[in-house]
Amino acid sequence: MAGSLFGKHFTIQTFGESHGEGIGVVVDGVPAGLPLCEEDIQIYLDRRKPGNSRYATKRAESDAVEILSGIFEGKTTGTPIALLVRNTSQRSGDYSEIASYYRPGHADFTFDAKFGFRDYRGGGRSSGRETIGRVAGGAIALKILKELGIEVCAYTKSIGNVSIDYKKFDRSLITAVPTAMPDAEANEKAAAFLEQCMSETDSAGGVIECVVNHIPAGVGEPVFDKLDARLAHAIMSIGAVKAFEIGDGTEVSSRLGSGNNDAFTMDNGRVAKKTNHAGGILGGISDGDTIVLRAYVKPTPSIYKTQETVNKSGEEISINIKGRHDPIIVPRAVVVVEAMTALTILDLMMDNMNSRMDHLKKIYLD
Amino acid sequence: MAGSLFGKHFTIQTFGESHGEGIGVVVDGVPAGLPLCEEDIQIYLDRRKPGNSRYATKRAESDAVEILSGIFEGKTTGTPIALLVRNTSQRSGDYSEIASYYRPGHADFTFDAKFGFRDYRGGGRSSGRETIGRVAGGAIALKILKELGIEVCAYTKSIGNVSIDYKKFDRSLITAVPTAMPDAEANEKAAAFLEQCMSETDSAGGVIECVVNHIPAGVGEPVFDKLDARLAHAIMSIGAVKAFEIGDGTEVSSRLGSGNNDAFTMDNGRVAKKTNHAGGILGGISDGDTIVLRAYVKPTPSIYKTQETVNKSGEEISINIKGRHDPIIVPRAVVVVEAMTALTILDLMMDNMNSRMDHLKKIYLD
Amino acid sequence: MAGSLFGKHFTIQTFGESHGEGIGVVVDGVPAGLPLCEEDIQIYLDRRKPGNSRYATKRAESDAVEILSGIFEGKTTGTPIALLVRNTSQRSGDYSEIASYYRPGHADFTFDAKFGFRDYRGGGRSSGRETIGRVAGGAIALKILKELGIEVCAYTKSIGNVSIDYKKFDRSLITAVPTAMPDAEANEKAAAFLEQCMSETDSAGGVIECVVNHIPAGVGEPVFDKLDARLAHAIMSIGAVKAFEIGDGTEVSSRLGSGNNDAFTMDNGRVAKKTNHAGGILGGISDGDTIVLRAYVKPTPSIYKTQETVNKSGEEISINIKGRHDPIIVPRAVVVVEAMTALTILDLMMDNMNSRMDHLKKIYLD
Amino acid sequence: MAGSLFGKHFTIQTFGESHGEGIGVVVDGVPAGLPLCEEDIQIYLDRRKPGNSRYATKRAESDAVEILSGIFEGKTTGTPIALLVRNTSQRSGDYSEIASYYRPGHADFTFDAKFGFRDYRGGGRSSGRETIGRVAGGAIALKILKELGIEVCAYTKSIGNVSIDYKKFDRSLITAVPTAMPDAEANEKAAAFLEQCMSETDSAGGVIECVVNHIPAGVGEPVFDKLDARLAHAIMSIGAVKAFEIGDGTEVSSRLGSGNNDAFTMDNGRVAKKTNHAGGILGGISDGDTIVLRAYVKPTPSIYKTQETVNKSGEEISINIKGRHDPIIVPRAVVVVEAMTALTILDLMMDNMNSRMDHLKKIYLD
Repeated sequence: MAGSLFGKHFTIQTFGESHGEGIGVVVDGVPAGLPLCEEDIQIYLDRRKPGNSRYATKRAESDAVEILSGIFEGKTTGTPIALLVRNTSQRSGDYSEIASYYRPGHADFTFDAKFGFRDYRGGGRSSGRETIGRVAGGAIALKILKELGIEVCAYTKSIGNVSIDYKKFDRSLITAVPTAMPDAEANEKAAAFLEQCMSETDSAGGVIECVVNHIPAGVGEPVFDKLDARLAHAIMSIGAVKAFEIGDGTEVSSRLGSGNNDAFTMDNGRVAKKTNHAGGILGGISDGDTIVLRAYVKPTPSIYKTQETVNKSGEEISINIKGRHDPIIVPRAVVVVEAMTALTILDLMMDNMNSRMDHLKKIYLD
Repeated sequence: MAGSLFGKHFTIQTFGESHGEGIGVVVDGVPAGLPLCEEDIQIYLDRRKPGNSRYATKRAESDAVEILSGIFEGKTTGTPIALLVRNTSQRSGDYSEIASYYRPGHADFTFDAKFGFRDYRGGGRSSGRETIGRVAGGAIALKILKELGIEVCAYTKSIGNVSIDYKKFDRSLITAVPTAMPDAEANEKAAAFLEQCMSETDSAGGVIECVVNHIPAGVGEPVFDKLDARLAHAIMSIGAVKAFEIGDGTEVSSRLGSGNNDAFTMDNGRVAKKTNHAGGILGGISDGDTIVLRAYVKPTPSIYKTQETVNKSGEEISINIKGRHDPIIVPRAVVVVEAMTALTILDLMMDNMNSRMDHLKKIYLD
Repeated sequence: MAGSLFGKHFTIQTFGESHGEGIGVVVDGVPAGLPLCEEDIQIYLDRRKPGNSRYATKRAESDAVEILSGIFEGKTTGTPIALLVRNTSQRSGDYSEIASYYRPGHADFTFDAKFGFRDYRGGGRSSGRETIGRVAGGAIALKILKELGIEVCAYTKSIGNVSIDYKKFDRSLITAVPTAMPDAEANEKAAAFLEQCMSETDSAGGVIECVVNHIPAGVGEPVFDKLDARLAHAIMSIGAVKAFEIGDGTEVSSRLGSGNNDAFTMDNGRVAKKTNHAGGILGGISDGDTIVLRAYVKPTPSIYKTQETVNKSGEEISINIKGRHDPIIVPRAVVVVEAMTALTILDLMMDNMNSRMDHLKKIYLD
Repeated sequence: MAGSLFGKHFTIQTFGESHGEGIGVVVDGVPAGLPLCEEDIQIYLDRRKPGNSRYATKRAESDAVEILSGIFEGKTTGTPIALLVRNTSQRSGDYSEIASYYRPGHADFTFDAKFGFRDYRGGGRSSGRETIGRVAGGAIALKILKELGIEVCAYTKSIGNVSIDYKKFDRSLITAVPTAMPDAEANEKAAAFLEQCMSETDSAGGVIECVVNHIPAGVGEPVFDKLDARLAHAIMSIGAVKAFEIGDGTEVSSRLGSGNNDAFTMDNGRVAKKTNHAGGILGGISDGDTIVLRAYVKPTPSIYKTQETVNKSGEEISINIKGRHDPIIVPRAVVVVEAMTALTILDLMMDNMNSRMDHLKKIYLD
């Protein structure tokens, strides 16, 4: 139980269901003195909100955030920041039918198996709307990281079989195109592919990549709180993510050591690596190089095709799901990956504050 | 800091370095009344100990475990079980040279960057010997799961480009062959490949797969303590693992929803799935089907080839690593994956004890 | 940081300041299937709300609670329950003056010392209004305990030098009289004493006692999560509490062992104790007897008398605090003690669900 | 379950029983770079070891500590430090009888009630020997605090009805006299009182006081991780402690606000208080003044007088406990209080490292 909390120092605890009063988050452990206003958070929420593109659910929500606590005179006070987004476009009528059966690929059956019953309205707590709390909390983490010179950037790497070409990488496209692909050509191909999916009442998956630049070496703890382990936890906790990679990921398993090791070199007086197969993490600790991670996202399970399933009475039935659904989750999930990455990194940077006697002396004796 | 603890209810805290006094673990949260003796743990440690095959380091360690606490009259008492394995074959002389430089692919540089200095003897805390504590703690979790009817089984899925053929799956081979591959033919091919690696003073990677059978539906928590997220954390915390998959993993990203959803059906009066692309987890909660996960392991970074790196004085140098190293980590890591999987599942089963009022009433009012 | 969370299994995380948007709490780890509505929570909030007696601040707040999540069809779903109480009677003007100086006995100076600045409006996060979240969360814990047959009851034991006489104990008075004293005569004496305090523009302290009946033996963990240790944490975390006792408390230090040990005896086939000096806890674990604890509460630091202090410029000054203040905190804090006690006990009962293999088998194999 | 861990950043996890292989502790979160050797820890263990005075059990144990991990070249490495003290003087024969019944004032019954059976040898895990782990871990915390200029000092304030006179306070006596009382005259009176207790085969209790000097203002978190709440948890987790006070403690409940508030003043350019009724903590956060706390310890429950109890068959019986017991726990528990206080303060100082953006910038941007 009590699985709605993430982090140890900089923590978020999310709450709320798709069709309840609203979705929210309590962000605790925010250092005092950070300038913060609702707009700082809203810009991130707007990137994930429904109805923001042709490939997003048509549910009309402004997802306007209200800061309930923790800010005084425009700055964080060091006390918990509670953020609330009211639900405004619940149409529970759409969902009454699904109360009786289990949608394939969804958490309907497992919630029933676990809790004995479930809030079946729009998936309840297992709805993608739950990520609002993550994005809102992540927005604060991202702002702090920025003040520390660290940049986190996620984007769509591929949709179906269409992948971006890094030679054409154009960061400005991430928030400008509906696929969140930083490659205009790939965006167009992916769009065509998605149109076909929609015309066939089917759905698509894809891959989200996230890079972190300018993180200092030394972040992450040996053994269980390795930076990559915590990132894996963070990213795999996003619904629909089925695989996680750091650096060269799955490819390393078929390589030889001589082809996978990154040679160290000096770069402007600092230790650097000639290659970055490792994705910026060695022994679970950041090495100062760019961190690269990938999340593999399954196709939206809600499709309009006829599907086979069982109902709560144990009868095998055929169903046609109605309602408003995204043909693909990936573009809206990009900002969620960015948020979860930022939350994880900041949390481990806070952990690292106590890694040396020198640090304690710098704060308490200087 | 304090990153040596894993779990919330059934917890392990490991300690020790490659060339210190020994390696150990404190296992807390073990329910009272489980019969337990050293042999229950030793059988698992023997599967990972060095020198147990041609592809393992030649370091001679018996890795004999001593139970220091928590057992009385052959049963667990409900209090912490401390387990200690003394190091006996430290040859620090082998490592004195590496004190001055950073081995590519190792944590030498990042430990220095984080802590200001490091225990350079055999990798210190970042050595693979750290996993002794995981395996010892996991042995207890595995015994408890067995009493609850749950079976966890890991094996080598592939080494380099050699993969097992599921039609030839022979579970008895896992502990019988040096590759831990449950397919005699694949084992032979992999052995040949490894001989070649060794002759070329190179190293190899591979893939470990783990399946969990007979887990009840309902294990795992919504949102951040999803079963797959916690498994990802567990598995990615094992050194050298660079990617994690659940069910069909990376493949789902290029599928259509209609090809990825698992239809529900009835099987002997229970809800079941016709396929298992999901790998036994829906919405982060076990669905009663077989859980399938995979860990992608990089080639051992210690190779005998000449490599480029830098030393602590900031000079670019060429090095030749000496000492005793595994040409591949995979076969010895199989039991580590099994242990971490068991620890995660048991921990979430304990969490789930409080998921319903019914459960509380069953224990406190019956 | 991140100190706004209490509990391990059944957790509350509170947020909000005296003069912000509101006060709230996220309650996570609530078992599914508990009938719950706003009225279940409101009855407890009404016991602590301002303006409910002559001895409470005149601030007019209805403290009406809104359930934001976690309930469906009148029952808990097993997902987090967020509760919000909007502030409606902020009069920040009253507090503008205190921005510049440190009120004796308050947290003004320490917040500034810690965070660099503070929300000075009504004490901000250090205000007694913060306890709304505790009481709201505690109301749910109390309801669950009741379903498990356990009763938690707190009351005023003494105000100034006026103490209750246990021979005259009348539980119905707790919520009926303004002092929350379950003894009509003591209530009258205490009332007279408080009138005098008020006429002298001074304030008073007192003692709150809490008893827990019908708790099963076996709750609490050895060593650090002892039931009494966790209760001490819970109760001492309430602002203004300066001492905590379990059972006979401070008195035991001057006793002989022969006069302090409670002899065991049999009572209707169950092990019982002839006396209860121990207050229902032995070795940190409940023994099945009544748990008795006491909280010693200091007089309200806000008094209307002239006081000496310093301002933020480091000048020594004399001040006269204005605004609305309780002449005594004790009667309103009674329900806070009840809430914190319930939260602690329930949390450790959940811990105890995993104490034996038998329990796990009862849930997973029956 | 899993209640053997204390702390969030600087953590100790203890293990071991009175008559098992030994007692130990894993200390995690120790900053790298602290010089540390076994002698640093042994000096504290020697203060609590049995047989060190006429009033301590005659059990002969050297309690020699072995460092198993976490130290390299004489300094902490930032990885977990495991410490082990082997038991050498187990005389389980003494305890075989008590297997069948419940000693009054002990945890025999509650362990059986919780776990279904117990390690009855010398109290097993509920033995006072468990505090070895606390003292060993506390020794490291004390050394770190000393490097940060903070001094923690505990002593016996009273035994039975004999209390120290602060005018005669002589700190050097704490470790020199068998009562640990820093007042020669009180020590003599207490000694006479204890001789009488022993001649009457009875036992005595007392009060331990602990002061912390030079702690900076700002340590402790608002709401649940208040410094006093965490100290209460720490101190009440020590077996036999039945009450906890901070500052003037229980006395404040009968005071008026005007007599309890501490006026602020300036002292050498720093904010100070004219009095210290608060015991150095306001709003749960250190105010820079001396922290004062007290633990009220019950008389040793093991006495040689005949006592009434029940056995496991539910029969009421009379017993005479044999074996080796302390007539008073207080003098040996003084160092345990010192250890737990240090652990708590250091842990919250680590928490406080992340309280301000300024701190993060000082470490990551300077």
